[in-house]
This record gives sequence, structure tokens and C-alpha cells, in this order.
Amino acid sequence: MKIRTTGLLLACLSICTLFGQTPEPEKDAAFIDQLFKTSLKEGKSYDWLAYLTLKIGNRLSGSYGAERAVEWGKAALDSVGLDRVWLQDVMVPKWVRGLPEVAYIDHGGGKTTPVPILALGGSVATPPGGIKAGVVEVQSFDDLAKLGRDKIQGKIVFYNRPMQPDVIETFRAYGGAVNQRTKGAEEAARYGAVGTIVRSMSHKIDDVPHTGTMQYGDLQEDLRIPAAAISTRAAEMLSTLLKLKPETEFFFKQTSRNMGEVKSHNVIGEIKGSTFPNEYIVVGGHLDSWDVGDGAHDDGAGVVQSMEVLRLFKALGYQPKRTIRVVLFMNEENGLRGGLKYAEVAKQKNENHIFGLESDAGGFTPRGFSFGASEAQFSKIEKWRSLFTPYLTDHFTIGGGGADIGPLKNDKNVMAGLRPDSQRYFDYHHTRADVFDAVNKRELELGAAAMAGLIYLVDKYGIE
Amino acid sequence: MKIRTTGLLLACLSICTLFGQTPEPEKDAAFIDQLFKTSLKEGKSYDWLAYLTLKIGNRLSGSYGAERAVEWGKAALDSVGLDRVWLQDVMVPKWVRGLPEVAYIDHGGGKTTPVPILALGGSVATPPGGIKAGVVEVQSFDDLAKLGRDKIQGKIVFYNRPMQPDVIETFRAYGGAVNQRTKGAEEAARYGAVGTIVRSMSHKIDDVPHTGTMQYGDLQEDLRIPAAAISTRAAEMLSTLLKLKPETEFFFKQTSRNMGEVKSHNVIGEIKGSTFPNEYIVVGGHLDSWDVGDGAHDDGAGVVQSMEVLRLFKALGYQPKRTIRVVLFMNEENGLRGGLKYAEVAKQKNENHIFGLESDAGGFTPRGFSFGASEAQFSKIEKWRSLFTPYLTDHFTIGGGGADIGPLKNDKNVMAGLRPDSQRYFDYHHTRADVFDAVNKRELELGAAAMAGLIYLVDKYGIE
Repeated sequence: MKIRTTGLLLACLSICTLFGQTPEPEKDAAFIDQLFKTSLKEGKSYDWLAYLTLKIGNRLSGSYGAERAVEWGKAALDSVGLDRVWLQDVMVPKWVRGLPEVAYIDHGGGKTTPVPILALGGSVATPPGGIKAGVVEVQSFDDLAKLGRDKIQGKIVFYNRPMQPDVIETFRAYGGAVNQRTKGAEEAARYGAVGTIVRSMSHKIDDVPHTGTMQYGDLQEDLRIPAAAISTRAAEMLSTLLKLKPETEFFFKQTSRNMGEVKSHNVIGEIKGSTFPNEYIVVGGHLDSWDVGDGAHDDGAGVVQSMEVLRLFKALGYQPKRTIRVVLFMNEENGLRGGLKYAEVAKQKNENHIFGLESDAGGFTPRGFSFGASEAQFSKIEKWRSLFTPYLTDHFTIGGGGADIGPLKNDKNVMAGLRPDSQRYFDYHHTRADVFDAVNKRELELGAAAMAGLIYLVDKYGIE
Repeated sequence: MKIRTTGLLLACLSICTLFGQTPEPEKDAAFIDQLFKTSLKEGKSYDWLAYLTLKIGNRLSGSYGAERAVEWGKAALDSVGLDRVWLQDVMVPKWVRGLPEVAYIDHGGGKTTPVPILALGGSVATPPGGIKAGVVEVQSFDDLAKLGRDKIQGKIVFYNRPMQPDVIETFRAYGGAVNQRTKGAEEAARYGAVGTIVRSMSHKIDDVPHTGTMQYGDLQEDLRIPAAAISTRAAEMLSTLLKLKPETEFFFKQTSRNMGEVKSHNVIGEIKGSTFPNEYIVVGGHLDSWDVGDGAHDDGAGVVQSMEVLRLFKALGYQPKRTIRVVLFMNEENGLRGGLKYAEVAKQKNENHIFGLESDAGGFTPRGFSFGASEAQFSKIEKWRSLFTPYLTDHFTIGGGGADIGPLKNDKNVMAGLRPDSQRYFDYHHTRADVFDAVNKRELELGAAAMAGLIYLVDKYGIE
């Protein structure tokens, strides 16, 4: 096999130089195989992830952890021997959780049960003494309208619509429930609620609350009410208690606050293209995380996989035709400022970004990719599918790429996302459980190799 | 969609009764969707697994746990409302671990380092005071031949060939390394070794030793030497120390012994076929486990998934045409007596087993199935593939079915295996880490639904 490949290589050396886009499936298969073998045998992604999660830990935008992560990211990319590594300034919102939250269910008669909550990112604090109030359980914003201001005024609104268990792709189930978290406080405030509690975004029934971003929209400042997530098990308990005794009260106290903006950075590294240096291919994940756990799956995995793509190219001596950039985006979780800034600067400099690939769905076994692409582009891309079949990473679909690379999308280019197995993702997402040990070394490395394989093909053949 | 399906149903009621094998892809898709939805929303497999692992725990053949598991399996199947549930007697070997093993590396000069080991299943004990000897590290049986009796006599042979990291399917990597465990003692004894230590069968570098079965072949009893598995981290350490100081010694002590045979049982349940009651379809996993951990992935998952297949049919009111049996096999781990007995009785009774499906590769996200089938049979089966694409369980390959159903295989029938994602399997296999919490509810339930979907198709269309 080796001899045949070498033979082919020699035979087509002159032709291939002239007609760079002639398909070479055998050569491509051999190179992609090298990418997988190297990632699994001598990969760097897992060691990098160990450092990022165990030595630095969580890294919410504007935090000390985030700045340490920026320094680490730059130093790590410097060590890879890229053509250029730099920081890109970006202003990010700084939100702090403050003291650990306190919450309990008040059964009346002096009986209380403490429950685990986490303030949502962006939420205001409760008054210093906390909030205690009756609870209105709802499944949707429609329920609010039906209940009306009379029944909601002065109450805590408890959003308890679960993620649908019978949807196969968990991200779709998340999409169907997450508006309770992002817009729940804004909607409830319009009816005079004093606070909101949202069932954690997870299929798993446990004691671990899931934080995440929320916004108040155009709600004026003095009408903004505090919002927190409650663990799924406590949500089930609260719901049962409310059915037995509707006058059950809830207390919570949090000291979270928004502290304006601070300067932070995207970390960028690049290998200059040999033939089409003005065509850019971006691969990335986001460097920031929530302020609980260590952001191992979200999105330490995507960060180290993206770095590994360029490292694998260097390790195997692959000289790309197009300019390939790795971008460690800042502030995906609560502002997307890094993605917006990167796209803004790219536009200013008139950089032609033909392709982007993001990994921000966890470091689980890769199942394939989704492509923000036209039908014509997708049908070209689908021809590469069989190259990923030996690695069981061949589910290609039309769909979104990723939040950070979204602002780069235009009519001509393609923005893609790695699609790992999604079943376990919401066991960890935005929680204290999202730690290094939750990531499997092989699964992480398979994802990095699959990403490198796709970037290699785009670099070689381009995107029409 | 519902209305259209119902319309189709009515339209073809008469035709379908006459020509049972006319493909009805829309109806099949709808029923398989129901199987998945029901498994994910109202499944019983996860609760069953909780009982089997947390209340009963591990259940090596011949142990009290195994007998409790038999009783539980029968009672659980009784509760499903099958046509018949019974126990099938089978004699199984009884091996006991005895006292916890003790092992250390002796650096000389009174310095020792304790290391984690587990006696291999079937191994004899060390002498009561343990064995201390110099160590010969090898990668293969060829290495033994090269070294010869001179260098091996009186020594402990240390097998340290790792599972290959760059093989995508971990079961293949396991297959490439496991002869060190199964036959290592027999081979080393022929050169006069006094014991063997084998690197645990795992990709993961940690402190958890992996037990598993071993045999002495035709080696006469007084030549049999004790065999144990050492954790991967300790194996790496021992290997390093031997390079620095070849005279490093190893001590280990174990009191394991073989205690003859005892009676145990396969647990069998069946739904009688309405049209072809004399054609049998079997779905199963193995009820026994190793004596460490709780046998959650190996093979609690396969047991409860197989039970769930029949429960789903009952829950959805599906009356099979052919007789469908669930078999909870005893003694897969160290004897395969359950599988052999089941096939023996089936042959005696002249039961025509047209299809078997085993789940014994962990309760991870299902990726597809492998089929022990002829090319012609496989090309028919492949037509069903697209029915599994919505569940990302559509990797169909020709290959083995499973150990327990292996003895049922003949020229005409098909024996299949569920193929879950394999990347994490050898993090848990045969260790104390194989516990309930290592299994994800959704992944387990997806596997059960996929199995039910395949059994439904075989029942409806048969296998030529």
C-alpha cells in the first residue's frame, strides 16, 4: 500500500502541481489516515486540555482565569512553530457571580428545604436580604399571558418545561427549552414577577444546577429581576410540592452583578498559504467558559482540538496552499464579542474567508460535520464523506457552523461545525461537572483528527 | 403525518395480511420512531440496570450475586407479561478470587512500591507466602522463544504489549493484545516462569487493574503458574524501572482458586409468534459479570436492553409473527456454558433459530450493527439501513454477532451484534469502575430502541 501510494505520488507530481484540484482520493485517504494515527499516538490535545482545565480552570470573560488562558493560548501556539501568533484586542462584558447563592423551599410552619441554584449569567442580584415569595409554575411564555398580571405580580415565576427526551439530537431539545433561561426574566418582569427560577437545561435528573446566559432585552433597569437556574431534581420536587400545596414559598439570594466592560483578547495563530495566501480558512473554539467547573467540554475541547489541527499539519510537514488560522475566541458565552471582533477586523482588512470550522459541542466521539453551505456547495462537500467513513465520522448535514464563526458567514463561503455525539453533552454543560475527567482522551483526539482532515480537504480543493 | 400513516395502514390492511413481506417503509419508519420515543420517554431499561447493579452488584458465575441476578431476571421478565418465562439449568465453573491481592515492586535495598493488581479469572493461587522473583518483560510469545528457558526459568514474565492506540475500533485493538492475558501463563510456564503479570487491557493510563479470563490449555496441573493483571500506570512504571535496573524484583500474592462446577441458569422469556411460531428470534446479553465493579456496561446494559426489546413490543401492542425470545445468558465471562447449553437444547428440540442479536459491547451510544451473514443476506439487511439513519445508528457491517449466540450460528441463519461507540469501553471493562454511574440513560435507551427496531424488521420480513 505504501509503495503504491508513493508510486502514485511520483506519477502525478507534475500534473498535480498544475491542476491542484484533480481529485486524489487515494492520496487523501492516506494523508487523513496519518492525521488520525498521529493524533491518537502522539497527539497534544489531551495534554493541552489538562493544562487549561486543571492548571487554569474556569475562565469567564473578564476574569483572571480568562487572562491566564489568553497568555497560555499564545504561549502554546508559539511553541507549535506557526508563521505568526498574535492577540487581537476585544472589549468584553464582565459579570461576576459574587457570593455563593442561597435558596430554599419554604413549606410553611418553619419547615424549609435547601435547594441548589446558580445565578444566570447577566442576572442582577436579589435585594441584600434575598427574595421570598409565592411561586407560579409555568411551561411557557403563553402560560404567563394566560395567568396575567393578577396571578404573577409579586411572585417568583418558575419555568419548568423540560428538554424533550424523545428528540434524538440533544442540541435540538436544548433549543426547544432554552428561551426560558435566556428571556424568562424579561418576560416575567413584564407581568410584575419579582424573580425567576428556571429548570436547569439538562436531561439528567440530578443535584447539579446549570448556569448560562440571560438577557433583559429592552427592559428598563429598575424593572430587571434576578434569575437563577435550579437543579432538575429540585425542580421536580418544587413542582410536586406546589401541586400538593400551592402556597409553598421560595427564597433565594444572590449577589451577582454586571461590572461594565474590560479589555480581553482573541488568540490567533496562522500558517501562511503557499499558493493562495489571500484565501483564509479559520478553525476555532472559544477560550472563555462559565465560572463553574473547568470548561472542559465547553469549550476547552474545541480550543485544544483547533490548536491540534495546525500542530498536526506542522508535525506531518503539510504546507497548506491557503492561509490557515486557528482562533481562540473570547466571550462566546455571554456576548460573542470575540467572534464579532474577529469578523469586523477581517472585513476591514478585506480578508477573504472561504471556510470556517468550529468545535463547540463537546469533546465526545465525532459523528460528522454540519455545513452552513448552499446545496451546490454541500453536494461538492458530500463527495468527501466516504473519506471519513473509516473513522465513523461521516454524518454530513446542512446546518449551522458555530456561534463564533457565524459573523464571518456570507453568500459565498461555508461555515461548518464538528458534530460530536451529543447524548452526554447536557450532563456537563455550564456546570461544576464539566471537568477534565469528563473528557475521554481518544474521543477528543478523534475529533481533532477529523477536523484536520476536513481542513486539509478544503485547503487542497477549495470551496466553490 | 399521523393521518397519512393511518390512511396507508387502512389502505394496505388486506394486502399486507396476504403478502406479509411487501416492504412498507413508511409504516416501518413510524413504528421504529415509536420504539425510540417510548424507550426515551417511558423506558424501563435504566431502572432495571439500577436494580441489577446497585442492589445486586457483581455476579460472577457460581456466586451468590449470580443466583440473585437469576431470581431478579425471572421476576422482572414475569412482570412484563410475556407468554412464558423459565429458567434453563446449566452447570458453570466456580472460581473465587479469595483475599485481596498484594503486589509490590522491590527496588532492592529494602525499598518497595506497592502496585495494584487483580488475579486473572481461572488463575491458581501463588504459594501462601507469595512469589518474589526477577522480572522478564516481553511484548509477545515470540519474545519468549527468543529469550529461551535460560533467561525465563524462575522469573516472573511481564507481558507489556499495549493495546494499539491508532486502531479506531477499540475491540480490534483488544483482540490484538488479549492473548497475553488468555494464554500468557500457559506459554510462560513452558519456559519455566514462576508467574505472569500482564498489562491491563485498556488504552487509559490509570491505577485500575482489569481482570478477565485466562486458560492453561493442556498444561498439566503441577506446571500451572499464577497470573495477574497490573494497572497500566504501574505497568509503565515497572517497565521504566526495569530499563534503569534490570535486577528489579516483583512480589505478588493471591489466593484465587477453582472450585469445580455448580448449577446455575439461563433466564429465558418468550412471546409466541402468531404466524410462524416455529421460527425463533433470540435477543440477549449475559447476566454474569466479573467479581469487581457492578458489571454495568459488561453486560448489565445488554441484559436490560434485551429485556426492554420485548417490553417495548408489549407496551406498543406489537404481536410478533415469529416467536421472540429474550435470553439472559449465564457464564459468558469464564466458560460460555450458558450460550452452549442454550444452543444444545435448541438443537435437541429442533427449534429453528433464524436470527440472534446480542448486546455485549457496552451501554454506549449505538452506532449500528454487525451481522454474521452471507453476502446475499447482508445485501437484504442493508436495505433497512436508512430506517436507522434518523437515529445515527446506521453503520451496518458484516462481522461477528456475540459470544453467547455464537453456538446458534449455522449456514442459514444470521447472528448480529449491537455496535455501540467503542471509545470508552475499555476504560471500564472488567474493573471496579464498571458501575451504574458509568452508563448514560439516553445512550442505554437508544441502544434498546435500535435493537427493538432491528428485531421488528426481522420478525416482519424474515431472513432468507
